[in-house]
Amino acid sequence: MRGKGELRFIGIVESEGENEARVHIFPEFCNALKGIEGFSHAIILYWFHLRDNEKERSVLQVVPRRHTKNLKVGVLACRSPSRPNPIGLCVVKLVKVEGCVLTVKGLDAFEGSPIIDVKPYIPRGDAVPDAYTPEWVSH
Amino acid sequence: MRGKGELRFIGIVESEGENEARVHIFPEFCNALKGIEGFSHAIILYWFHLRDNEKERSVLQVVPRRHTKNLKVGVLACRSPSRPNPIGLCVVKLVKVEGCVLTVKGLDAFEGSPIIDVKPYIPRGDAVPDAYTPEWVSH
Repeated sequence: MRGKGELRFIGIVESEGENEARVHIFPEFCNALKGIEGFSHAIILYWFHLRDNEKERSVLQVVPRRHTKNLKVGVLACRSPSRPNPIGLCVVKLVKVEGCVLTVKGLDAFEGSPIIDVKPYIPRGDAVPDAYTPEWVSH
Repeated sequence: MRGKGELRFIGIVESEGENEARVHIFPEFCNALKGIEGFSHAIILYWFHLRDNEKERSVLQVVPRRHTKNLKVGVLACRSPSRPNPIGLCVVKLVKVEGCVLTVKGLDAFEGSPIIDVKPYIPRGDAVPDAYTPEWVSH
């Protein structure tokens, strides 16, 4: 039996949209946001709660989005929501910080998704503009 | 009471060093790596197992590393290992993929840290080279 960890939900996605979303951090974690307003971008980790079941967490390979042909890739080699730990990751633009609410751009999460972490985006380590990807990613 | 999620450890950091580290994915998750070798970089999510206790998970603000003065920032506004969910995130260079073992560069994790997710790095969404940070980050 492998080890396990306990995740605590620290907030929730309040609204989603093509453009802006609101990330509501629960009041008891609000003080942990101090200083986030100084960053232009953040990394949001959230929980794919709709995929948090045995079936979806057992999926090891998928056909990537927008691919219909016979291409299967590992879930750790794509951003599939079906994965052993249904964690979603988005780099977002911080549009506004008001108390416990972050208004962000670029969050690809459903309304109601639990938030599990917020990290400031630090280009020194996080930005690799010349990273390359396989050909199927750009299709 | 807020919601919780269950994390399953899918691998472990086998060795760490200034330069290269080995990320060993447990055999039952190995097929989920298929295709990762086509990417130059990946995002590794790991568990700060040494901080997985009530005291460290209750910390809301810290003095950032290399700062001795009177500056306190929220743990969600820095990359402190003490945070509500002790998840570490590193963008790494994929040096080698051999079976279940990824040899990577840039992983800032202790040997023995559980791995919770591996995601391919896709510059289109993940790279924001001109993101800005507060002045204290570069000090």
